[in-house]
Amino acid sequence: MTARPTRQDRFSFGLWTVGWRANDPFGDPTREPLDAVEAVHRLAELGAWGVTFHDDDLVPFGSADTERDRRIARFRSALEGAGMVVPMVTTNLFGHPVFKDGGLTSNDRSVRRFALRKVMRNMDLAAELGARTYVLWGGREGSETDAAKDVLAALDRYAEGIDTLAQYVLDQGYDLRLALEPKPNEPRGDILLPTIGHALAFIARLEHGELVGVNPEVGHEQMAGLNFVHGVGQALWTGKLFHIDLNGQRGPRYDQDMIFGHGDLLSAFFLVDLLESGGYDGPRHFDYKPLRTEGIEGVWQSAAANMRSYLLLRERAAAFRADPEVREAKRDAGLDELSRPTLAAGESVADLRTDRTAYEEFDAEAAAARGYGFVTLSQLALEHLIGARG
Amino acid sequence: MTARPTRQDRFSFGLWTVGWRANDPFGDPTREPLDAVEAVHRLAELGAWGVTFHDDDLVPFGSADTERDRRIARFRSALEGAGMVVPMVTTNLFGHPVFKDGGLTSNDRSVRRFALRKVMRNMDLAAELGARTYVLWGGREGSETDAAKDVLAALDRYAEGIDTLAQYVLDQGYDLRLALEPKPNEPRGDILLPTIGHALAFIARLEHGELVGVNPEVGHEQMAGLNFVHGVGQALWTGKLFHIDLNGQRGPRYDQDMIFGHGDLLSAFFLVDLLESGGYDGPRHFDYKPLRTEGIEGVWQSAAANMRSYLLLRERAAAFRADPEVREAKRDAGLDELSRPTLAAGESVADLRTDRTAYEEFDAEAAAARGYGFVTLSQLALEHLIGARG
Amino acid sequence: MTARPTRQDRFSFGLWTVGWRANDPFGDPTREPLDAVEAVHRLAELGAWGVTFHDDDLVPFGSADTERDRRIARFRSALEGAGMVVPMVTTNLFGHPVFKDGGLTSNDRSVRRFALRKVMRNMDLAAELGARTYVLWGGREGSETDAAKDVLAALDRYAEGIDTLAQYVLDQGYDLRLALEPKPNEPRGDILLPTIGHALAFIARLEHGELVGVNPEVGHEQMAGLNFVHGVGQALWTGKLFHIDLNGQRGPRYDQDMIFGHGDLLSAFFLVDLLESGGYDGPRHFDYKPLRTEGIEGVWQSAAANMRSYLLLRERAAAFRADPEVREAKRDAGLDELSRPTLAAGESVADLRTDRTAYEEFDAEAAAARGYGFVTLSQLALEHLIGARG
Amino acid sequence: MTARPTRQDRFSFGLWTVGWRANDPFGDPTREPLDAVEAVHRLAELGAWGVTFHDDDLVPFGSADTERDRRIARFRSALEGAGMVVPMVTTNLFGHPVFKDGGLTSNDRSVRRFALRKVMRNMDLAAELGARTYVLWGGREGSETDAAKDVLAALDRYAEGIDTLAQYVLDQGYDLRLALEPKPNEPRGDILLPTIGHALAFIARLEHGELVGVNPEVGHEQMAGLNFVHGVGQALWTGKLFHIDLNGQRGPRYDQDMIFGHGDLLSAFFLVDLLESGGYDGPRHFDYKPLRTEGIEGVWQSAAANMRSYLLLRERAAAFRADPEVREAKRDAGLDELSRPTLAAGESVADLRTDRTAYEEFDAEAAAARGYGFVTLSQLALEHLIGARG
Repeated sequence: MTARPTRQDRFSFGLWTVGWRANDPFGDPTREPLDAVEAVHRLAELGAWGVTFHDDDLVPFGSADTERDRRIARFRSALEGAGMVVPMVTTNLFGHPVFKDGGLTSNDRSVRRFALRKVMRNMDLAAELGARTYVLWGGREGSETDAAKDVLAALDRYAEGIDTLAQYVLDQGYDLRLALEPKPNEPRGDILLPTIGHALAFIARLEHGELVGVNPEVGHEQMAGLNFVHGVGQALWTGKLFHIDLNGQRGPRYDQDMIFGHGDLLSAFFLVDLLESGGYDGPRHFDYKPLRTEGIEGVWQSAAANMRSYLLLRERAAAFRADPEVREAKRDAGLDELSRPTLAAGESVADLRTDRTAYEEFDAEAAAARGYGFVTLSQLALEHLIGARG
Repeated sequence: MTARPTRQDRFSFGLWTVGWRANDPFGDPTREPLDAVEAVHRLAELGAWGVTFHDDDLVPFGSADTERDRRIARFRSALEGAGMVVPMVTTNLFGHPVFKDGGLTSNDRSVRRFALRKVMRNMDLAAELGARTYVLWGGREGSETDAAKDVLAALDRYAEGIDTLAQYVLDQGYDLRLALEPKPNEPRGDILLPTIGHALAFIARLEHGELVGVNPEVGHEQMAGLNFVHGVGQALWTGKLFHIDLNGQRGPRYDQDMIFGHGDLLSAFFLVDLLESGGYDGPRHFDYKPLRTEGIEGVWQSAAANMRSYLLLRERAAAFRADPEVREAKRDAGLDELSRPTLAAGESVADLRTDRTAYEEFDAEAAAARGYGFVTLSQLALEHLIGARG
Repeated sequence: MTARPTRQDRFSFGLWTVGWRANDPFGDPTREPLDAVEAVHRLAELGAWGVTFHDDDLVPFGSADTERDRRIARFRSALEGAGMVVPMVTTNLFGHPVFKDGGLTSNDRSVRRFALRKVMRNMDLAAELGARTYVLWGGREGSETDAAKDVLAALDRYAEGIDTLAQYVLDQGYDLRLALEPKPNEPRGDILLPTIGHALAFIARLEHGELVGVNPEVGHEQMAGLNFVHGVGQALWTGKLFHIDLNGQRGPRYDQDMIFGHGDLLSAFFLVDLLESGGYDGPRHFDYKPLRTEGIEGVWQSAAANMRSYLLLRERAAAFRADPEVREAKRDAGLDELSRPTLAAGESVADLRTDRTAYEEFDAEAAAARGYGFVTLSQLALEHLIGARG
Repeated sequence: MTARPTRQDRFSFGLWTVGWRANDPFGDPTREPLDAVEAVHRLAELGAWGVTFHDDDLVPFGSADTERDRRIARFRSALEGAGMVVPMVTTNLFGHPVFKDGGLTSNDRSVRRFALRKVMRNMDLAAELGARTYVLWGGREGSETDAAKDVLAALDRYAEGIDTLAQYVLDQGYDLRLALEPKPNEPRGDILLPTIGHALAFIARLEHGELVGVNPEVGHEQMAGLNFVHGVGQALWTGKLFHIDLNGQRGPRYDQDMIFGHGDLLSAFFLVDLLESGGYDGPRHFDYKPLRTEGIEGVWQSAAANMRSYLLLRERAAAFRADPEVREAKRDAGLDELSRPTLAAGESVADLRTDRTAYEEFDAEAAAARGYGFVTLSQLALEHLIGARG
């Protein structure tokens, strides 16, 4: 196999992924802190194109300005040395206890103001580093009991917060777009904007919605048992797929953040197929956690495994699309027909209303007898995926 | 207890609920067919205010026009006799085999046209009967394998279909609004517009979105493990809660359609609290299935139980809201503060940017020390719910 | 690809699988009834080895004895003609309304007695046809509300029922073993013996437990979000894997009964690996439903797809096991070491208690530093599965 | 309301519950460490009867013996001063990195030996403090990929480990029973012995199974979507309910450990009903986490809320049981009949086989017509629960 990542593949990783020290709700860290500079160099060697970070990944919360400047300078220099870009930046509004009831929707107004400022400050850095996407994951925006949060008021505050940040981007003239990252729960019992759909609906109500899109994550939708490919499809359909977080999950349970492909493999295959054919041209960003059982060598192996899984799936998806038998099966299944409008060109509703072939003379029993051939298609996909064709 | 339903409570039932014959994927019907006329009279006696129906509930698929007219006439006469209204009507686009790959998004274009006409025909009846809401549940709009459906094309067809129907309403001058009913899966492996959020996002992209809202169902959101109160809250926030389906569900599994309150009881309590206080003034519609173990007497008992559960929860929610201790606990928890905008009146983003108290001088540790008192609030809610206060 | 099933592969299918008419909770049948004789011949042509059935699949509930005899004779003759065996038989204790509260645990004692007799009668036929396994799926043994069932009494009745049936097998001298099939829910809200574990625990308390094992189904465990490979592993460990139902499922939702491999593909790969290497020598039985969208040709394609998926996965699992790099990775990961007893040969608990190297002198930090190499192993498995190695 | 806990209620709490510092996978601690001595006194004041602990809760991992002795002495003195007992003790085999691949089933044999010794050492303390139950939660016994663990070998090691510990109890003459605590996942992707059923099945295969039972936790079973009341019922039926962990959970998602009653309230009601009427006489142990949003006052309020919820539910369950209307509804529903053996006293299988009334003359249609009245029963339960009767 020759699947080796290159810069053209636009693979990126969060500093917090390879840098995760592997503490979890029941256990202490198993790995030493990882220097951001080393992360940049090692990821570059593995073929990655970009790194991303939360403000606090790079500069610990509460650091003095001089320390902050020093760390940023060192990081920039590493980026330049390694030829890596920073396509996306985000803010940590969840780790410090001050955010325990949320950032932009905390019941405490002073916390909300602090949160906005914390984002704005890091947006300045993002712009400086040339990032084009600013992600907002509202992991603490939610509640464990419905008594604790007035959802309508919270959504008002959420919208106010996002619009304020969008206005800041406009005021500053930054070339940044905002991307909301939905998640149904964990660390809060229920998180606001739990799915791609809820986030898209929220964006449609914003004053500056044109600047705001989504950053869906494989595992987050699958934690709700939802079809990730459908969700990404709707985001694309809405013109709002600004960024994407790739990883693996095994259905409704805690957020696993496994290696891409190591969860629902069939879904990963169809996702790659959609991303590669559906017009998405943003980064392929891995937001995963190296297993807690692994040492640092396992960290780098897992980073490589993410990219390799993507490339292998990309090959298989391309072969699937190119296979004449698949094309024919798609035609038989009516996929071409689905792309045709239901009303004819120029046909009005009144025309449809009086088309007797559409209803009065329509033979429902005959139409019902059609077999759609989805078995053929899905088995072809499976066999392409497992390398059993060609 | 004196909780007895009256017409003012605006309780409504689908004909298909009390009329469900209790066949399921593994078993035959256990109950005889129920005459729609009897359903109307019995529901009226129990205190319901309205009945709703799918076209095929009232008139079997494929009936001759004369038979259709006869059945409709008989039904109208029953409504008048019983003093019942028809607040909502819907179309069956899922039962007949012709819809096996969907109605508005079937891969077969002739099926899509037939589906539109089937809805239009029943919209005529809905308008005639004075219904104000037309529900569309797209239970067959979906797939079992991602190979079978191009999601972007399917959403194009879905939007075309809904806009066509909205145009029809406008053309005819009907006083009808459309309400989409989301569901994540079953009977399809994955259904398009799986949650309230996805439906709201879709509506925002329609040409005639102003005519279209949602009809969320308790169990459908809970099948995805989502917080129904949050979802309904977002629908209200969006101005799109046109109708609601009340029932019970026990988390991610098959669609149970239990009696309202017999699933997640705490959520039912907070839902009633939200509906009664959040400005929703539409019908309280029960979309449930009487247990398959019950005879016809159990059917009527279960219909009564739905309404009684709602009324009892309404009493408890009112007491919860009125309790001075609760009000104080809400204040302590910051719920009032959440209603205050985060930026002061007239404050610009630039002002916030330079407010040193918001960031540079903000004492994060001190703010982090605040206890939110959510335990107090949630225990007060629990005790009001179980009648342990006052 | 040359993966073609032969009799040696011992693939079997339920008559109810290919014969499913595709009615579901929301829709009517989309396919015509399938003659059992045709099913036998077509499955044989496709390379299957055996067919299985519920009594009512072969002979409709309530048929006269002469009709029953005629159907059985015809079926036997088809089996002989096609060279097919009947490795397993089961009873339908769920379809008829009389079983609406269960068969062996119905609150109605007369129903329990009827259920036992219905099983016994079909056991006679099973023995006559040479079946070696008698499956009992208690799909209706359960409840929707905890008020409706005294679980302790129900388990008493369940045990009484199974022991009675085992005694019948002994009395008749049949060469039959019983296999319980667990399922968490659907069609009942909660089903007794919901998982492999609960069934194994129940069997351990039976009087005739030695005759009783389990028949786990892929989708049933995955409906509870459980790891099927772990469950089958525990069944094998307990010596109780008497039979297995292969199919596909996409996590906690309704029972999907998809084609084997079309659900959680990684789990299917590891399952085949376990079955082929773990000493299971029973049938590979497919309990699936051809998609409702398919016509009869799709039915046969889906039957073939099940077998083909199994064979392809078997090839890949064999290559995975044989790969020297995998063997080395397993050694590195400590899998050999896991097979070594924790206590040395002849070491007593007291010996362990005084072994200072085990505790007082054990360097926990050093041991904690070990990386287990699970990333390497899982990526090797993924790449073997998708045909990316050798 | 006068529901106040007393020692007779046998309420106990883990030191790790009120002492949880509220760090989670995405956030730092929000509360200061809590002195075990203070926990003992405050819990006693609130009406609790006992405290429980992991070895590392009381004495940090790796402490010197003198420090350990000092802490234990101080703790004992607090217990005596407060009149509190230690009904249960357990071991932390999950927090330290050395256990990252498990304790009793780690792929590393030296870790397994260390784990056994760590348990044995703490069993000495448990016995000394008069505990009667020793809980073993194997939270790290599992894997994230099926490639990493040979389930059969792991179960061999697990059984060897538990039997070794049981032998140690016997050797030392301790009056201790072991209780295994199942959990499906988190912190491992999949945990061995994921449910009550799997644990009971495992115990049945042990050499010293008579000493071993289960400690089920509400949330752990509900994370798999399983009915906790059914699971506890099967544990009681098996004679293996040695201990119980009460808390709240909202279905399949991360382990929430909410206050008892704050999750699935109907299930909590039926659970209390079962515990109080089903012969369980062990501790009512709360294993919960005070919300991360709360300060120390919220910690104590939440501890009190657990006990109060239990007591309120106990009152309602007692009223439900005592209500003559409920008794009649139970009789109508066949619950008495379920307690009657299916075979008559002295009736043999052969007798049943020839009882024509059981089959040949049984009128299935007539029996099928019976309505079971489960709606009545479940609505009565609901109304008792919410204080709407009497």
